[in-house]
Amino acid sequence: MAPQYKLRYFNMRAAAEPIRLIFAHANVEYEDIRVAREDWPELKPSMPWGQMPVLEIDGVYLAQSVAICRYLARKYNLIGETELDAAKCDEYVDAIMDMRQDAGKFFREQDAAKKEELKQQIVGETVPKYLEKFNKILTQSDSGFLVGKKLTYADIFVSYIIDGIVLKVLQQPEALANYPVIQKHIDLVNSQNGIREWIAKRPETPF
Amino acid sequence: MAPQYKLRYFNMRAAAEPIRLIFAHANVEYEDIRVAREDWPELKPSMPWGQMPVLEIDGVYLAQSVAICRYLARKYNLIGETELDAAKCDEYVDAIMDMRQDAGKFFREQDAAKKEELKQQIVGETVPKYLEKFNKILTQSDSGFLVGKKLTYADIFVSYIIDGIVLKVLQQPEALANYPVIQKHIDLVNSQNGIREWIAKRPETPF
Ligand SMILES: N[C@@H](CCC(=O)N[C@@H](CS)C(=O)NCC(=O)O)C(=O)O
Ligand SMILES: N[C@@H](CCC(=O)N[C@@H](CS)C(=O)NCC(=O)O)C(=O)O
Repeated sequence: MAPQYKLRYFNMRAAAEPIRLIFAHANVEYEDIRVAREDWPELKPSMPWGQMPVLEIDGVYLAQSVAICRYLARKYNLIGETELDAAKCDEYVDAIMDMRQDAGKFFREQDAAKKEELKQQIVGETVPKYLEKFNKILTQSDSGFLVGKKLTYADIFVSYIIDGIVLKVLQQPEALANYPVIQKHIDLVNSQNGIREWIAKRPETPF
Repeated sequence: MAPQYKLRYFNMRAAAEPIRLIFAHANVEYEDIRVAREDWPELKPSMPWGQMPVLEIDGVYLAQSVAICRYLARKYNLIGETELDAAKCDEYVDAIMDMRQDAGKFFREQDAAKKEELKQQIVGETVPKYLEKFNKILTQSDSGFLVGKKLTYADIFVSYIIDGIVLKVLQQPEALANYPVIQKHIDLVNSQNGIREWIAKRPETPF
């Protein structure tokens, strides 16, 4: 019997969206539970680390967004062909998370002047450093994908962070001007079966 | 033929030590290359993300400390019995990395007053929050291990972060007073074959 999945998160793309994109591409049914802010205080203590996203798999809770993505990726053949491919997927995801972590400092900063300073640093140094590296990896790829010949969860994850965080949330639409190969990669991922349809129909949220 | 491994990192435990502990327990040979600070600027551009640790596997570079640990853990049977076990290992490692990330803010803060304030917050709130959760998981475990019946890389990773970061680097020797089960877990991990010997013989470094 197919497992019963329930994904709990807020009504945002943010940390849950790569999971939803994997479900969409794998064409797997799940309950996309979007917890209202006012219901969160009551739910929080029952979540493994007091946070979401959490995926419920036949009653078992799995927390941590990247761990959830990887679990589903292995199940639905999105980790490449070899264990070293799978590890390269993990490496790429952790690298883009390092970038996202740095960008997170900007989102959390309350002081307007410091926020602007951080933005300059992130947009001017951190983001280009990682885009440069991913651009090189993609330029050297024959398939257009990050690892091996097929789509992996690293493609979905990395392109989502660049498209969603850098372009949309940091509002740097011109950030990819020097990296046409990355833009092509985002387009390639966003046109995959299931992903294309999900992007067209998903709830509109600011993040 | 057994793979040829070269691990490159600075002369510290820090982010590379869980990898070394896995090698030690798996009884696998590797070259433990400790790069001197003065040699780093020259080496940095050839590392995948301009950082270390990097594991060279028969000439292929794998970066990102957690991705390296997971790759070796899968190879040397330290991920539990099922794919859900493996995912729970990943969850626990990512959760303790969330704690470590918060603690990292303290290490990076230069302003003495703010540093003290951050320390209070981390020692007083963040660390206990995670210790409480891990204490509960371990209390409910029959085996004494975090996942299933046997040692996994999550045991090695989590106990190293708690032992190495909380007790030693944050200098909170009394932090485990309320969590005897966590202390027992650290002792259990540190007494495993290979790990015990490595801890006794490894280079002495401040971090
Ligand atoms: N490392 C975790 C972080 C999860 C996280 O930060 N969740 C936030 C939303 S993005 C949350 O639940 N915040 C509410 C709270 O902490 O009360 C993951 O990747 O899943
Ligand atoms: N997310 C990476 C972080 C690696 C990292 O921060 N490495 C530091 C040392 S712990 C480094 O190489 N610093 C030197 C530099 O950035 O030039 C991992 O877990 O491997």
